[in-house]
Amino acid sequence: MFDKSLSRNKGSRSFSAVGTGDGHDLQYDPPPACIGNAIGIIDEPLRQRTADVPQPKKADAIRCAHFRNGSMAAMTAGIIERYAAYLPVTATTPRVTLGEGSTPLVRSSRIGPSIGIEQLYFKYEGLNPSGSFKDRGMAVATAKALEAGAQTLLCASTGNTSASASAYAARCGLRAVVVVPVGGIAAGKLAQALAYGATIVSVKSSFDAALKLVRQLADQPGVALVNSVNPFRIEGQKTGAFEIVEQLGHAPAQLFIPVGNGGNITAYWRGFGEIVMTAGGSAPRMHGAQAEGAAPLVRGRPVARPRTVASAIRIGNPASWAGAIAARDESGGTIESVSDAEIMAAHHRLAREEGLLVEPASAASVALLLRRTKARQVTEGGAIVCVLTGHGLKDPQALTRGLKMPRPVEPTLTAIRRALHA
Amino acid sequence: MFDKSLSRNKGSRSFSAVGTGDGHDLQYDPPPACIGNAIGIIDEPLRQRTADVPQPKKADAIRCAHFRNGSMAAMTAGIIERYAAYLPVTATTPRVTLGEGSTPLVRSSRIGPSIGIEQLYFKYEGLNPSGSFKDRGMAVATAKALEAGAQTLLCASTGNTSASASAYAARCGLRAVVVVPVGGIAAGKLAQALAYGATIVSVKSSFDAALKLVRQLADQPGVALVNSVNPFRIEGQKTGAFEIVEQLGHAPAQLFIPVGNGGNITAYWRGFGEIVMTAGGSAPRMHGAQAEGAAPLVRGRPVARPRTVASAIRIGNPASWAGAIAARDESGGTIESVSDAEIMAAHHRLAREEGLLVEPASAASVALLLRRTKARQVTEGGAIVCVLTGHGLKDPQALTRGLKMPRPVEPTLTAIRRALHA
Repeated sequence: MFDKSLSRNKGSRSFSAVGTGDGHDLQYDPPPACIGNAIGIIDEPLRQRTADVPQPKKADAIRCAHFRNGSMAAMTAGIIERYAAYLPVTATTPRVTLGEGSTPLVRSSRIGPSIGIEQLYFKYEGLNPSGSFKDRGMAVATAKALEAGAQTLLCASTGNTSASASAYAARCGLRAVVVVPVGGIAAGKLAQALAYGATIVSVKSSFDAALKLVRQLADQPGVALVNSVNPFRIEGQKTGAFEIVEQLGHAPAQLFIPVGNGGNITAYWRGFGEIVMTAGGSAPRMHGAQAEGAAPLVRGRPVARPRTVASAIRIGNPASWAGAIAARDESGGTIESVSDAEIMAAHHRLAREEGLLVEPASAASVALLLRRTKARQVTEGGAIVCVLTGHGLKDPQALTRGLKMPRPVEPTLTAIRRALHA
Repeated sequence: MFDKSLSRNKGSRSFSAVGTGDGHDLQYDPPPACIGNAIGIIDEPLRQRTADVPQPKKADAIRCAHFRNGSMAAMTAGIIERYAAYLPVTATTPRVTLGEGSTPLVRSSRIGPSIGIEQLYFKYEGLNPSGSFKDRGMAVATAKALEAGAQTLLCASTGNTSASASAYAARCGLRAVVVVPVGGIAAGKLAQALAYGATIVSVKSSFDAALKLVRQLADQPGVALVNSVNPFRIEGQKTGAFEIVEQLGHAPAQLFIPVGNGGNITAYWRGFGEIVMTAGGSAPRMHGAQAEGAAPLVRGRPVARPRTVASAIRIGNPASWAGAIAARDESGGTIESVSDAEIMAAHHRLAREEGLLVEPASAASVALLLRRTKARQVTEGGAIVCVLTGHGLKDPQALTRGLKMPRPVEPTLTAIRRALHA
């Protein structure tokens, strides 16, 4: 309805619509040059259903996927609705969504120009509902769990995965169970999962032992394991690649992405591959960034005690090892490590030069780009995209590390001006 | 490119487009049934420029606004780009953006059905770049400040406004100065502004005195005051109403919104009014929610010492007093207060029944809806939208209030199963 008025104001189109009784039924005259988005003319509140959970949809849900892929639907429809044709879902798979996906691709304002890269973009995945990219995969994993009759989502993560699983479980009336090893885990890391109402089980064991127990528990009927071993997670995550291609109009020349468990680089590579297969064009070189103290893929062997400030990629034995290596090799890319100092420097620059607050792990992709640029290893042109995986508010401690509150001054203009010029 | 393939796969449309020199002039064969989004047919990266800052755009920027209002552009373009024709901007106003706006309208999964409201939606403004709705107004205020030659963004806020101002200042190479009264302000509230690189000046005075000083400082050349007295803030914020109408296909019957300074309810009312004026239809009843301990608009007089757990609406003397009252009266709505207990109960339900984490102030809108429903004051049908103004990660303390970490158990299946059934 509003879109209609936009057209009218431009004086170049001839939309017309008549609201009737309930305000839902509209008539529509196709415009002479239909280059705008016409989803406003749907005569049934189709879009309203896109957020329905957990009831399965009728067959028209998928048929209409393209139709709904308009501006307004994009704001409302989740990734299952928008990309059903490319996901392992059927017409009856519930369209679970919290509004994940459709994250901004923000063009670099200051970092790119400072290093001579004209087309630098950030895919800001921290603007997903639970604050990280995990929501894409979790939407699909949750939908498939519902479809299979599960009542419980189970995982062993202590970070973004547990937050995401707990959010989707809450939305769908499922129970979320998060199993964590006692000790070595800050209570703060689990605050988000607790807030969403997850059941936390803390076991007196190592993380590996906890994961083993979780896998055994997953054999129970009604329980869906949503750790990264769940194949639907990767499927959902690949939609990040779809969006980047839509936003740029083509695939970037290079993609920089943080690598912990290897699932996300695997997913993006699959996504780009599917686009190339159906629409042509070429896929980007994939550059994976690990933290120096947690770089099993760079070293070629697991790391017993991974250490890094970037907790979200603090992984010693990646579950998607083979997928990450394949993404690197098939794309002609690299997987390299960056130091914690480089990560925090990139974190700092993103906040202070771009206005983008990220959790430290996200900054690893930018840290690798900065290093490769400095070493003159970024020689080809074309667009470069850095994936920023999680929001800075996820890790409040990292936000103000090394920063100090100033001393109070007298409440006079002179004192304030002096403080400003100090 | 990808969208094109979607169409191809459906075998039902015949898009074709030829980009020319600057990528703006397009030829286009209208498809037989032009209901899809056609922006994918651009073979030149038009959209890339939508995120450019701070360089002013050529005149064609606005001409193309409608065209870009497609799904992919919506993911990248900010609110100035998308709604230029409805904002106080010219073709040369910089298209400042951090990817604000285009936030999801999430349909209620469990709260709505539990209270007999079929069409209940949440406008999840916490998914703006700095985590709150303030980014919409700040994008416009920053663009206008740049246009006027400002080098500094100045404000007296200690909360979401300071975070937002600091983010946009960082993006545009401006200085952000945040003046705060010493004492009574938790350092944590300023962490986000500090992280974005803002200069914090802490003065030995009350908040009112700090605000007075800030207004005097704003007379300096090169300084733009971006407190809520800045008129461009309201203009940017009204785009939230535009999006809701686009997402629903029509205006909701009722809108519930938290009220602190009164700026947001004023802005939404203006937005709905402009839509009705240009496109017809009817505007919603506006229901503003204040916190009991900070309810000057309900009491009809300023509150000297506002108190509430919902810090973002802890305001005793709203700057947009008249605007809020006008929104209430002209829409046939209400402004009522809810207790902190009701706010935290709604906060809890949003997280545990919807999977939506919000800061406490956001939950005030839902608390008011729950109260009015219980009192059988929600009698008319139609869609109801609750605006959720900020993300839950903004207020980590509120997340786990009253929640406890469980006691560790032995690492055996039996012990875990026992813990799960406890």
